[in-house]
Amino acid sequence: MRPLALLTDFGLADPYAGQLRAALARLAPGAPLLDISHSVEPFAVSQAAFFLAASAPHFPSSAVFVCVVDPGVGSTRRIIGAHLPNGEGAKGGQDFLAPDNGLLGLLLGTPGLARPRVFDLSDPASSYAASATFHGRDIFAPLAARLSAGEALEAMGRELAQKDLARPDWSEARERPGAPCEIDAHVLHVDRYGNCLLSLRASSPPPQPVSAVKMSWGQRRGVLQVRTYADIPAGAVGLLAGSQGFFELAANQASAAVALGLRRGDALRLVWAE
Amino acid sequence: MRPLALLTDFGLADPYAGQLRAALARLAPGAPLLDISHSVEPFAVSQAAFFLAASAPHFPSSAVFVCVVDPGVGSTRRIIGAHLPNGEGAKGGQDFLAPDNGLLGLLLGTPGLARPRVFDLSDPASSYAASATFHGRDIFAPLAARLSAGEALEAMGRELAQKDLARPDWSEARERPGAPCEIDAHVLHVDRYGNCLLSLRASSPPPQPVSAVKMSWGQRRGVLQVRTYADIPAGAVGLLAGSQGFFELAANQASAAVALGLRRGDALRLVWAE
Amino acid sequence: MRPLALLTDFGLADPYAGQLRAALARLAPGAPLLDISHSVEPFAVSQAAFFLAASAPHFPSSAVFVCVVDPGVGSTRRIIGAHLPNGEGAKGGQDFLAPDNGLLGLLLGTPGLARPRVFDLSDPASSYAASATFHGRDIFAPLAARLSAGEALEAMGRELAQKDLARPDWSEARERPGAPCEIDAHVLHVDRYGNCLLSLRASSPPPQPVSAVKMSWGQRRGVLQVRTYADIPAGAVGLLAGSQGFFELAANQASAAVALGLRRGDALRLVWAE
Repeated sequence: MRPLALLTDFGLADPYAGQLRAALARLAPGAPLLDISHSVEPFAVSQAAFFLAASAPHFPSSAVFVCVVDPGVGSTRRIIGAHLPNGEGAKGGQDFLAPDNGLLGLLLGTPGLARPRVFDLSDPASSYAASATFHGRDIFAPLAARLSAGEALEAMGRELAQKDLARPDWSEARERPGAPCEIDAHVLHVDRYGNCLLSLRASSPPPQPVSAVKMSWGQRRGVLQVRTYADIPAGAVGLLAGSQGFFELAANQASAAVALGLRRGDALRLVWAE
Repeated sequence: MRPLALLTDFGLADPYAGQLRAALARLAPGAPLLDISHSVEPFAVSQAAFFLAASAPHFPSSAVFVCVVDPGVGSTRRIIGAHLPNGEGAKGGQDFLAPDNGLLGLLLGTPGLARPRVFDLSDPASSYAASATFHGRDIFAPLAARLSAGEALEAMGRELAQKDLARPDWSEARERPGAPCEIDAHVLHVDRYGNCLLSLRASSPPPQPVSAVKMSWGQRRGVLQVRTYADIPAGAVGLLAGSQGFFELAANQASAAVALGLRRGDALRLVWAE
Repeated sequence: MRPLALLTDFGLADPYAGQLRAALARLAPGAPLLDISHSVEPFAVSQAAFFLAASAPHFPSSAVFVCVVDPGVGSTRRIIGAHLPNGEGAKGGQDFLAPDNGLLGLLLGTPGLARPRVFDLSDPASSYAASATFHGRDIFAPLAARLSAGEALEAMGRELAQKDLARPDWSEARERPGAPCEIDAHVLHVDRYGNCLLSLRASSPPPQPVSAVKMSWGQRRGVLQVRTYADIPAGAVGLLAGSQGFFELAANQASAAVALGLRRGDALRLVWAE
């Protein structure tokens, strides 16, 4: 059985993540269950998209991902599946199940991916007797169990063009038009250490070292582009290409989010000298 | 080895859940470990009873449940085991270990259960050298390991009548005497989305659609009985037979608990027109 | 594959613990993954040291422990490995991977251990292409996978004398010089029930029953030395040799930390009559 990776906003206090794991253990006995996180903030699709894009490369190359952050549960939003082959021409790959709400957006936008394919799974999804409110346990779990047992997405659903997927209004960082030494980005996630993960991929570094950050409310703060947390002087804020595949603002054993007053979702500009 | 499902109030910050899992991995190597939740509020037996009744039907039909919410640990309260057969005459079934404090009450009260049997496990429990304070790790884990390996509850303990179990003072919803269009219920659990899970089973719906809820402090609020969260208009509160086998008060991407000022344990009345 | 036990300060909200589990599932497929806790407070090495010393005896005798609370990540601190044999002359044992920052200190100081051996793993660690900021996933995981698959620590690193390890400034309780009826201790951890775990091993009980505790700010409170939580009268505070191998201050279904105003790290004195 292929391993199953779980990403939800169910939290760990309620029994929902436990019921999802239970259904998978019942329907796919023997498949290893691996939690990415169940603590995505309720309905925070962009945060889940970041968790998934940052984490998928570290999972087994045959993993099936069950991603349920689903404000539209019970409405008519589609359930989609994506297949990321292990490389052009290689066999196997990772599969992803999610609502069609942008959750797969950052993953599918990863530069250099072997050609991903996406499928509309509305038909097989509709075949499961489901509570109206818990599609994770009642629809996603049986779909994932079928993939874990060896079925292929292309045999289960109708192929879609990537451009037909829902596109959320949050997006990737971009150089600011008319201001060649600035990049517009936003905070995808603030982690428990206070590091601010930005919508700027480590694979697309600014052309020059960044020297300051401008907050959306006008404040400007100097930052130091560094290699690792230990390189950041006490009291300073660093910018580094962290371990998550995205740039992050960080302090050394302190919270950059507190130092800068940043929260998840905030917009900002990275600035460098010409 | 039969799979082991864990339900405790140990939390995930302390090492207690980890030590329970460790003991089970040591004593029942190879048995899948499945967490229901470790985040029952400390000593909240009624909340645990709800988590268990809502979750057990989704677990493998051979699972052994280790349920430890145990304000009386170290006192003389009994440890009990319950066996739920897979159906009249069928082989196998789920087993449940818990202190005799009402934790199994909602589960054993599920309508339509095949005949459950309960056993006093005080004798085998007393055979384990135990710290006086951590019976979960030191007594429940070895008992669960024996069940996982194939022993039967009836060979381990003395059978009890269900009426001899401890009965907690919290109970199921009931129609209000003298007020035929009202049901008394209380809040079993408030989940992370703010949904208020009520002590009213989905299998016992009110005879007419509910149109209002009266809080114990006298306030009355209109509610709309709906099928799914997405059917609740913005700003309104809905009542629906959710995915947990019990009715719940909910809002659409908002907190019904905040909207109504409800907390776990609060009493309320559901009202409908005659 | 040997089972893998995980202890970190990554939390469960961020995807870091999930990525560590993912890397281990990829590199050591089939090895059981057992969380001790991922909720050590950020950078709280002493708390992690307590969790480890309290938990290791309950894990399988062949477990490999991955312990990552690492304020110095990216600096030049060493990665070390420790081997605890199952007994003098016995085969096998538990292995521990950690930064050289004192995290293994309480474990290695356990009275009566069979002779532990410690190794500097800087050489094999440097062979892994690593993000500068996430050594848990990028260095500890592949080292742990090698141990899980059967490699031995002594074949991987250079043996160190235990006295060459980093020694943290927090330490074990000791009788107060010049005051024969007092022991100086501090609070290693406050658990979710409000119990205060002390740096006083259950194997080194005070010579007489303790009757009071003096807080570092001068306050003195009577305590009752008891066997179990249920023996503590309502409103009182008890001292007991708990399930964790260390003494703890506790109240009966109430918080001793709140009753005494204690927090993690606080110093105190235990007092008894001559």
